[in-house]
Amino acid sequence: MFKAKVYVTTKANVLDPQGAAVQRALHTMGYGAVEDVRIGKYLEFVLETNDRAQAEADLKKMCEQILSNPVVEDYRYELED
Amino acid sequence: MFKAKVYVTTKANVLDPQGAAVQRALHTMGYGAVEDVRIGKYLEFVLETNDRAQAEADLKKMCEQILSNPVVEDYRYELED
Repeated sequence: MFKAKVYVTTKANVLDPQGAAVQRALHTMGYGAVEDVRIGKYLEFVLETNDRAQAEADLKKMCEQILSNPVVEDYRYELED
Repeated sequence: MFKAKVYVTTKANVLDPQGAAVQRALHTMGYGAVEDVRIGKYLEFVLETNDRAQAEADLKKMCEQILSNPVVEDYRYELED
């Protein structure tokens, strides 16, 4: 059994309107030191298998096929025992 | 200047319909080993200050006031130089 953590972020050259909105809100609330806000997704799940190589191969395919949109998003993942 | 990374997740005892939907989709696509999918938010931003204690205090307040909903969500953060 492995625990997977996946981070999906918009690519650096893609506009992130959600991040821009949060940044404006933070500035309005007095946190003027905040810059370059980017918002992404964070996923956690369990992989019920004992084969680490298989788990990692599956995880990579999942990220590319459904968990991220490779045109505008990057992903990275961690696989923990 | 510090780089902040904030992870916001639904509390363990709160339903996560988005996670349940992704889990069903993954099962349908043949990834039956996936269980307990939880989806949260991942935020990255820069704090334009040299005062680490102030940066950390601000970050904590931001998390509690706007970046998470403490009723149903947990947060954790990392502050990097």
